[in-house]
Amino acid sequence: MQKESLKTKPISVVLLGGGNVAIQFAKNLLSHPFAELVQIYARDLSQLEVLKDETKKTDSLDDLVSADIYIFAISDKSINEVSSHPFFQDKFVVHTSGATAVRELVPHKNGVLYPPFSLSKELDVRFKDQDFFIESQSAEQLELLQNIVEGFGAKSHLVNSEQRLSFHTAAVFVNNFTNHLYALGMDLAKSADIPNEFMEDLLLKGVQKSLLIGADKAQTGPAIRGDSQTMKLHLANLDENKKNIYKILSESIQKRYDKKL
Amino acid sequence: MQKESLKTKPISVVLLGGGNVAIQFAKNLLSHPFAELVQIYARDLSQLEVLKDETKKTDSLDDLVSADIYIFAISDKSINEVSSHPFFQDKFVVHTSGATAVRELVPHKNGVLYPPFSLSKELDVRFKDQDFFIESQSAEQLELLQNIVEGFGAKSHLVNSEQRLSFHTAAVFVNNFTNHLYALGMDLAKSADIPNEFMEDLLLKGVQKSLLIGADKAQTGPAIRGDSQTMKLHLANLDENKKNIYKILSESIQKRYDKKL
Repeated sequence: MQKESLKTKPISVVLLGGGNVAIQFAKNLLSHPFAELVQIYARDLSQLEVLKDETKKTDSLDDLVSADIYIFAISDKSINEVSSHPFFQDKFVVHTSGATAVRELVPHKNGVLYPPFSLSKELDVRFKDQDFFIESQSAEQLELLQNIVEGFGAKSHLVNSEQRLSFHTAAVFVNNFTNHLYALGMDLAKSADIPNEFMEDLLLKGVQKSLLIGADKAQTGPAIRGDSQTMKLHLANLDENKKNIYKILSESIQKRYDKKL
Repeated sequence: MQKESLKTKPISVVLLGGGNVAIQFAKNLLSHPFAELVQIYARDLSQLEVLKDETKKTDSLDDLVSADIYIFAISDKSINEVSSHPFFQDKFVVHTSGATAVRELVPHKNGVLYPPFSLSKELDVRFKDQDFFIESQSAEQLELLQNIVEGFGAKSHLVNSEQRLSFHTAAVFVNNFTNHLYALGMDLAKSADIPNEFMEDLLLKGVQKSLLIGADKAQTGPAIRGDSQTMKLHLANLDENKKNIYKILSESIQKRYDKKL
């Protein structure tokens, strides 16, 4: 491993962006063993105040310096526009987005360096031992991406734009939507003076069971039992919004297991 | 504690039911320090084959013996009908249902002994250290229920029928529905050849984050960001059923945080 690292020549990096993803990339690049963060671009420099002063910062695309790779950690909707700046014409640019196809990057030399894990303001995330989904059109650029990821102490996986979008969509179901259902369930319990700890226990044990025996075997509840009496009692207890969610998810459960059982 | 147990006189119990809940109650009652399981009733005696032979079994309500308490671990829809049998007229009957009101038990002396945790075929569950939601109309019967729960080594909580229904409804959101979303997410990932481990990791880390900082602070994703471009990309990737679920949950997230943010 060390031999591998020694023969890797330094990689100069320019990072673009001022949000959570950019800040986490910046912090991890600053302690990277052979990648050098030579410049950070953000439209609003105040976003970069959390970073050390020695980092070279700019708020103008016209001031960008030359580098081996330009990492776009900007909002999805700006990727196409910013990458169409003439400066990037012959540069190697990658974005870090889960849902955006690699072709949204205008220049020909492009790729993706996507962290399939959550990056938030609250918490610094070390990239060590994490996974990255990478994509590129040439073997040379792919090797450069693999080297960067390896330098983080992380693992790279070749994932194309279609697969990455599917993963990103799946993550909304598994992560964002389950979190929302948890919020709704907590509301119901709270309004009935049921202490949080009961709900927390349910959530954790439910997930442990799903992971242990698989979601299909772990599915329980009135919908899969066809227990319409209980479903009626539950529905009578819900506001319009929760009622709609209850109905559509119960129908989805019934469709899934009627077919399979 | 031991002093308490010594002064507790034996409690004779008749259990009704042959499903998962009844079997788990039977097993835990058979090792209870001072409750004696004197009889089990099931419509179909073959359901009780997993239990030791010394347990007295019957499939006729007319053969029921006298006991201090009758625990109904039968299906919700049979509670009302079975409890209307003349035998129970002056007996203390309790059910174990989450959604059924205590008044569904026809006789006047009634109560609830509800385990707010999942009982499945796959796995024997010891009641020790678990929680029970109990309900009754007289102090004497409440004490009997508390003694049974204490003998399990479990904790009892006074929870009325309305609260219990809210908890049971909340559990569907937090447990059954989140499990289903996990199943749908796994399908999406599988169809894109994304290994399960990525989804499992997402699920577990998401839940840990919700528990740590609370579901409202933990909410992320395109809906709360108002990122309609990404939502369009996701929706284009989904079948009708997943599309409907995606839309209704995204709208619910937007409603919740538009109001509050």
